[in-house]
Amino acid sequence: MDTAAPAAKPAYAELTRLQLQIYRFRHFASMAYWDRSSMMPPKGNEARAAALAELEAHIHRLLTDRRQKDALAAAEQEPLDELERANVREIRREWRAATALPESLVQEQLLASARCEHAWRTQRKANDWAGFLPNVREVMRLAREEARLLSESSGLSRYDAMLDRYEPGMTSAELDRLFGDLKSWLPALAAKAKQKQARENRVDPTGPFPASKQREVSLAVVKLLGFDFDAGRLDESAHPFNGGVPEDIRMTTRYLESTCIDSLMSTIHETGHARYEQNLPREWLGQPVGRARSSAIHESMSLAFEMQLARSRAFVGLLAPLLARTYGSHPAFEADNLHRLFTRVKGDNLIRVAADECTYPLHVILRYEIERPLIEGEIECEDIPALWDAKMRDYLDLDTRGNFENGCMQDVHWSEGLVGYFPTYTLGAMYAAQWFAAIRRANPDLDQRVAAGDPSPAFDWIRANIWSQARRWETPELARRASGEALNPAHFRHHLETRYLS
Amino acid sequence: MDTAAPAAKPAYAELTRLQLQIYRFRHFASMAYWDRSSMMPPKGNEARAAALAELEAHIHRLLTDRRQKDALAAAEQEPLDELERANVREIRREWRAATALPESLVQEQLLASARCEHAWRTQRKANDWAGFLPNVREVMRLAREEARLLSESSGLSRYDAMLDRYEPGMTSAELDRLFGDLKSWLPALAAKAKQKQARENRVDPTGPFPASKQREVSLAVVKLLGFDFDAGRLDESAHPFNGGVPEDIRMTTRYLESTCIDSLMSTIHETGHARYEQNLPREWLGQPVGRARSSAIHESMSLAFEMQLARSRAFVGLLAPLLARTYGSHPAFEADNLHRLFTRVKGDNLIRVAADECTYPLHVILRYEIERPLIEGEIECEDIPALWDAKMRDYLDLDTRGNFENGCMQDVHWSEGLVGYFPTYTLGAMYAAQWFAAIRRANPDLDQRVAAGDPSPAFDWIRANIWSQARRWETPELARRASGEALNPAHFRHHLETRYLS
Repeated sequence: MDTAAPAAKPAYAELTRLQLQIYRFRHFASMAYWDRSSMMPPKGNEARAAALAELEAHIHRLLTDRRQKDALAAAEQEPLDELERANVREIRREWRAATALPESLVQEQLLASARCEHAWRTQRKANDWAGFLPNVREVMRLAREEARLLSESSGLSRYDAMLDRYEPGMTSAELDRLFGDLKSWLPALAAKAKQKQARENRVDPTGPFPASKQREVSLAVVKLLGFDFDAGRLDESAHPFNGGVPEDIRMTTRYLESTCIDSLMSTIHETGHARYEQNLPREWLGQPVGRARSSAIHESMSLAFEMQLARSRAFVGLLAPLLARTYGSHPAFEADNLHRLFTRVKGDNLIRVAADECTYPLHVILRYEIERPLIEGEIECEDIPALWDAKMRDYLDLDTRGNFENGCMQDVHWSEGLVGYFPTYTLGAMYAAQWFAAIRRANPDLDQRVAAGDPSPAFDWIRANIWSQARRWETPELARRASGEALNPAHFRHHLETRYLS
Repeated sequence: MDTAAPAAKPAYAELTRLQLQIYRFRHFASMAYWDRSSMMPPKGNEARAAALAELEAHIHRLLTDRRQKDALAAAEQEPLDELERANVREIRREWRAATALPESLVQEQLLASARCEHAWRTQRKANDWAGFLPNVREVMRLAREEARLLSESSGLSRYDAMLDRYEPGMTSAELDRLFGDLKSWLPALAAKAKQKQARENRVDPTGPFPASKQREVSLAVVKLLGFDFDAGRLDESAHPFNGGVPEDIRMTTRYLESTCIDSLMSTIHETGHARYEQNLPREWLGQPVGRARSSAIHESMSLAFEMQLARSRAFVGLLAPLLARTYGSHPAFEADNLHRLFTRVKGDNLIRVAADECTYPLHVILRYEIERPLIEGEIECEDIPALWDAKMRDYLDLDTRGNFENGCMQDVHWSEGLVGYFPTYTLGAMYAAQWFAAIRRANPDLDQRVAAGDPSPAFDWIRANIWSQARRWETPELARRASGEALNPAHFRHHLETRYLS
């Protein structure tokens, strides 16, 4: 891949050259977004925004350049090997999405979502749905236009065309099947787990926890989880995220002095994302086939680290002495107690990002069931609050009437026109459970190994089956090769039953 | 400037649009260089280098684009105001330099200087002149080719054409006159100062000085000097420098635990550079006329802060209690003693960057007298060591024979083909003295104001006369408008005599 293609494939060679150029410009965009969130002083914002708009427009021009189109069409006729064909498939997919949207729409969307998101920051705190409504209506009008154009170009339904950008190949028919299954057993499971936990004793750690000590713990845990600090950094930002490029990953976390657990779990979650990027195959870097498979697979990596590994009793046994050593001995840091804290089901939680793994999928399903008809034009933005309230009552037995701040205005996604992304969180949770089922089948002694301080069997499996595969296969094929079957929600159910009901 | 140009100047409007585009791409280059030196982990280097090469090539294409040439020629015929004419003058200057060099030469130079500089890092420590010679010979061969092409395009001599990129309008004839004057009195002045200081008592502070405390002191002093932390950052790197963009300045320093003075002076020096950039007129940003005037004027800002202001007895009176408070009371931190340390003439110093302000110009003149005939083809790289030794003996009475490490291999400049830059250091020192002579004429109470904690009269003068003028005037005109005359080395002489001999 990284050597010159043989003379028999001149179009493919040209295509990879053009892609490499795009990759290099994206390097600066990634770094600039990371810098903006973690380093940039406030007065730098305007110049950064103008520079990013110029760069993004340039990248869009490269993506839709005539040479790209011609090389792509010609390369598809050349005698390519399997990996090259996979690369062309991914380039075609990206090219189709990029050319479907006129630059004027992209610019309008950027403006409308910037305006909506900026106002949302204060409107949310003010519980101001009426103020938010006209802004989000405009964002959704443009998102519908985007969906219409993507649908025309792909032949998918409008929502499926939006979903396809994050989760290629996934459809709402498949989501209905998967989420329908979840809905049939998850609410009862969560209720039962809550009931069971009501009888348990739990000791909460008492803060404040200085940021400097949390940083120490984070660095130690991130190292234990195998992050390569020679090829990346851990910094701080208001919202934890992964940025940078696979050769140089910039992940962030945040330290709230009131809690020492939330930020640690955020850091572990981001480490899962980060190690995926750091371990993408070096020889394919710069080509679409070398990128992470999809949003759901990415989330399956972060949740494999956070939910499957870090909240397991074996791993908690490693964290407990580290926390006690850093913050001082306290009954809260006793391993069994810590494990109870890490696996606590909080049924009264209105907020998705603070939800436990039992109730989290219900928050996602609710959003999916609103954004799909919204983008298809079956409902309007005005209908969101009533639907929200009804579904929160049905799925989580919670009353959100009149509470927009912690109800339908809690997420940033819709302000930014990000439709089709929510489902990938729960697909990720299901994949993570499926991966760990496979890891346990291959390593019956996994928990003993982890308890002894060696999580490498998990990493070795993930490296062989996920990291190293990048976009070589479509997602169902990746899952089959890794675990013997396409996505099967039974593993997620089994995981939750084992952890919460046994 | 920032509003649309009237319809009568369509070419000028197009020209400023193209320049703004270049400005925005340069934003990423500046940030990426800063990041590389202060943030980037080692394994990020290869991807960063490839991305930067792609970006620099893109910027070069934009600079030399046919549309640029056409808009420039047409704009020169339009009814421009004085500021617009200044902008066009600067665009024409940059365009001429950019188009004079074929991209193949630029690429060859990048490769040769990267190779030479990389090897130099170890060759210097090994005192390996023989190993260094073939590399630097190749770099200089390409620099001569560059000088030849720049000379053809500008009509200047070869060395003057190189000099012109850093110090537009400056010539070797003028340098010979200025440096000839310095050489006639500076060695004697330095010797006399050394003699005088031999009778003084001096107490050195005793370390180690933890980096965290040095950081505290640096932040306090940088704030006192007016740096806007909402529009910039202070970080750390192996070599202190200024990066970023005027809207968001990234300056760096370094903290050596063995000394608390060197890093503080580096920080103050960089603050002088940084405030120039931070205070360039906002309404001209994005256009060449809005950039800092030249390398010498930039250096005059850093030296105005470091040499003129910070090493004055009045300012030392502000630093002394801060140092004593941070590091603990010590006789070294008594103000008069500190001032003696800050103005110590160390005549036995082989190293330019560690030289005091009396002997520093002699280090620069020596380099100028070698690099000028070298680039004109009058001497060869093989001749450098003998010339170096002879001039070190003549100007500084020091023996460097056989000592390449701390002799002619000590600087990075020639490894990188940077010829014509050295003189700007000493031009900067002379300008800084000239500015402070004007500041003192306008503010006879300057020292009292500074001693009372208020250096604002100096900043106000600099803002009105230098920062706000950007590239509006050619350098001699800038100096005349600011101080009533073009560069006059008598001010530098007067400054040194007052500080070191009175």
